[in-house]
Amino acid sequence: MLEKLKEEVYRANLNLVEHGLVIFTFGNVSAYDRKSGLMVIKPSGVSYSEMHPEDMVVTDLNCKVIEGTLRPSMDAPTHAALYKSFPSVGGVVHTHSSFATAWAQAGKPIPCLGTTHADYFYGEIPVTRRLSESEIASDYEYNTGLAIAECFAETDPLKIPAVLVLSHGPFAWGEDAGKAVHNAVLLEEVARIASITIAIAPERTIETTLLDKHFLRKHGKGAYYGQKK
Amino acid sequence: MLEKLKEEVYRANLNLVEHGLVIFTFGNVSAYDRKSGLMVIKPSGVSYSEMHPEDMVVTDLNCKVIEGTLRPSMDAPTHAALYKSFPSVGGVVHTHSSFATAWAQAGKPIPCLGTTHADYFYGEIPVTRRLSESEIASDYEYNTGLAIAECFAETDPLKIPAVLVLSHGPFAWGEDAGKAVHNAVLLEEVARIASITIAIAPERTIETTLLDKHFLRKHGKGAYYGQKK
Amino acid sequence: MLEKLKEEVYRANLNLVEHGLVIFTFGNVSAYDRKSGLMVIKPSGVSYSEMHPEDMVVTDLNCKVIEGTLRPSMDAPTHAALYKSFPSVGGVVHTHSSFATAWAQAGKPIPCLGTTHADYFYGEIPVTRRLSESEIASDYEYNTGLAIAECFAETDPLKIPAVLVLSHGPFAWGEDAGKAVHNAVLLEEVARIASITIAIAPERTIETTLLDKHFLRKHGKGAYYGQKK
Amino acid sequence: MLEKLKEEVYRANLNLVEHGLVIFTFGNVSAYDRKSGLMVIKPSGVSYSEMHPEDMVVTDLNCKVIEGTLRPSMDAPTHAALYKSFPSVGGVVHTHSSFATAWAQAGKPIPCLGTTHADYFYGEIPVTRRLSESEIASDYEYNTGLAIAECFAETDPLKIPAVLVLSHGPFAWGEDAGKAVHNAVLLEEVARIASITIAIAPERTIETTLLDKHFLRKHGKGAYYGQKK
Repeated sequence: MLEKLKEEVYRANLNLVEHGLVIFTFGNVSAYDRKSGLMVIKPSGVSYSEMHPEDMVVTDLNCKVIEGTLRPSMDAPTHAALYKSFPSVGGVVHTHSSFATAWAQAGKPIPCLGTTHADYFYGEIPVTRRLSESEIASDYEYNTGLAIAECFAETDPLKIPAVLVLSHGPFAWGEDAGKAVHNAVLLEEVARIASITIAIAPERTIETTLLDKHFLRKHGKGAYYGQKK
Repeated sequence: MLEKLKEEVYRANLNLVEHGLVIFTFGNVSAYDRKSGLMVIKPSGVSYSEMHPEDMVVTDLNCKVIEGTLRPSMDAPTHAALYKSFPSVGGVVHTHSSFATAWAQAGKPIPCLGTTHADYFYGEIPVTRRLSESEIASDYEYNTGLAIAECFAETDPLKIPAVLVLSHGPFAWGEDAGKAVHNAVLLEEVARIASITIAIAPERTIETTLLDKHFLRKHGKGAYYGQKK
Repeated sequence: MLEKLKEEVYRANLNLVEHGLVIFTFGNVSAYDRKSGLMVIKPSGVSYSEMHPEDMVVTDLNCKVIEGTLRPSMDAPTHAALYKSFPSVGGVVHTHSSFATAWAQAGKPIPCLGTTHADYFYGEIPVTRRLSESEIASDYEYNTGLAIAECFAETDPLKIPAVLVLSHGPFAWGEDAGKAVHNAVLLEEVARIASITIAIAPERTIETTLLDKHFLRKHGKGAYYGQKK
Repeated sequence: MLEKLKEEVYRANLNLVEHGLVIFTFGNVSAYDRKSGLMVIKPSGVSYSEMHPEDMVVTDLNCKVIEGTLRPSMDAPTHAALYKSFPSVGGVVHTHSSFATAWAQAGKPIPCLGTTHADYFYGEIPVTRRLSESEIASDYEYNTGLAIAECFAETDPLKIPAVLVLSHGPFAWGEDAGKAVHNAVLLEEVARIASITIAIAPERTIETTLLDKHFLRKHGKGAYYGQKK
């Protein structure tokens, strides 16, 4: 079942390696088939070079395995919580990419310091709140997803398609698995340039007019970037 | 028309990828045919690996498409403004290369800290002024080009063939597209070494005698670098 | 003798190069055959590209060569001291990987700043004490091993499978040579992300509940990472 | 003439590219044939990929071309000054490798912060003094060589086989061209780790006993590193 989606998720996972976002078995990508209510996700702890499309695990949003002989990624409940909370999202990525992880460990949102950021993220990349001891003790991964969703209570998650989980690392998402990986790569690039920037001068965030101009020339009705479809 | 120039612009764009200055569809290179008054530029939002020489777009300096089925790069008006302002320039490059972008985001010119810089840029790399709200609201990209030109009112743009656009990123140029890319690579290298330098010790700019010596042994009448032509 | 182990040690040494942990003849990996009491280790000062499995040197834990025509790595006595002190360890790695070496040179343990660290190291990575002049003057390499062992007097070395030798660089270990290299790669990654983190904000170590959660979901009885065996 | 040495110098120059120490036409390697008093050096401004062994230029120590149709590297007089001053040196390298150049631009010697440094350089890597205006105005490159030699008035140049030229970049040397390149790579690595180190903690230089131990276990009479010859 969902063979085409498995292939997509498989390729999106391999893209993490090609873009240098993961080593060993770090990271995972999933996609959600909203029609059937089923999620396809990387199996847990399997190395990228030994993985095949048919190893992708199909689960429902309670993370019950519907098809597949392998265990799904440990982070599956976080992915599931995001699909429940974000109706427009069809793909989710988790990595420990170095610079985004460093900002998550520092507990600081990534400020919007320039147009590279503004082109893809409509404002600062938020950091989740600290989980309580009981939230860590039980359903830790699902609670992580809820804490992410809280950050987007008043924000369209497709306008800022990434978050930093405090003391942990980044999650990114998009309409599908491929776009989620695209956003994860952009997040890491933006995090890297932000790190270099604040070492040169104290934070100097972009002015609102310029943020609007850059995000809106690429997204929404008035966009004029790229080719007509 | 201008098939040879299209091939040059195409190759110069691919060089951005080879030199690690761009990811995805970031960046663009153009060249200007001063005789016909026409510019050849990368199409907007097309990925480097799927691009062909014949996809390069020919426009006039008002960015009206003269030949080509694709939209030109969104930044075409900035390129056009530079060709209008800088009569000696035949190629322009825009990237979001990490270190040069960080200096642009920090809002600081790159000081001339050593001979690597002095060999190619005859003094600090300037940062453009902040655009007004109305300059952002209409003709943003063209106004960006004018703000760049302002920085070179009293400087030969071939002696400092690059600039940092505030909160945005670098533009570089040269006599042709290939030289513009060469300068974009050098700018990123100089920006990178400058970042490492100021982390070791406070800025210690090069003395004028040494700046002159290094720039002038490579450029102008008394140059003795390279081979006789 | 021990041909299979030589092959393993040979491959583990080459992995150091593939993971970018060593240049030239830097670094060395060994494995210990607890049954025979013999150690297999890289020969001293031989370059990775010219090395063959049969060049691996077999010694006892006094570093007396039992088989092989080449001298063992100069650091063999440190490896031997670790095999004597850590009964659960079957492989040891030494590198001068950049970020771990920098922390060793700074004389600071790597604090546990996030879950990337907590997933593999159950707390901060310690730094050895300063050796006395006489410990440096005679049996320097063996004394280095004893100083490492001191750091683990009250810690299971498989729960924090790495250490920083003061003013020198990292050692890592594991149940076998392959796992030791795996841990050396993780150490470098963790050291790198920690360096980036403290440049963004002062140290903000992970809370104990989260450290426990992450280490224990991957290790020990209650672990649920990876596939069932 | 000197065909074998040309081949060596040619290969040593290509090694600069392989080790990532140079881009474009940056950098140059030479070797000195002490018997004939002739130097073989890279031609000026020729790119590494288009260079052939027979393009290497043969000059005397006044930099007069003895054989070859191309101009020698602009830095030839610096190389010549080093061969005159350092009787044990047979190869010289100049690069603008990023981290060593940053220390040169910062005007700070690279302190000996650990054993990676101590294994190859017997103490801090010095920075040359500032040249006078007249030293820059005439015979600049030769005066640069003399300023380097001044730093080694009381030091064996093979014990610290590298230097930082103030506001410029590194020179390294060795018994032959290959060893000089080896030292240039080590210098860059040491400079890089030093930069990372001082960002973690204030400088904490290695103690003399440990410096002696590490340098002397690899060099001189009592050395026990590597294989017997």
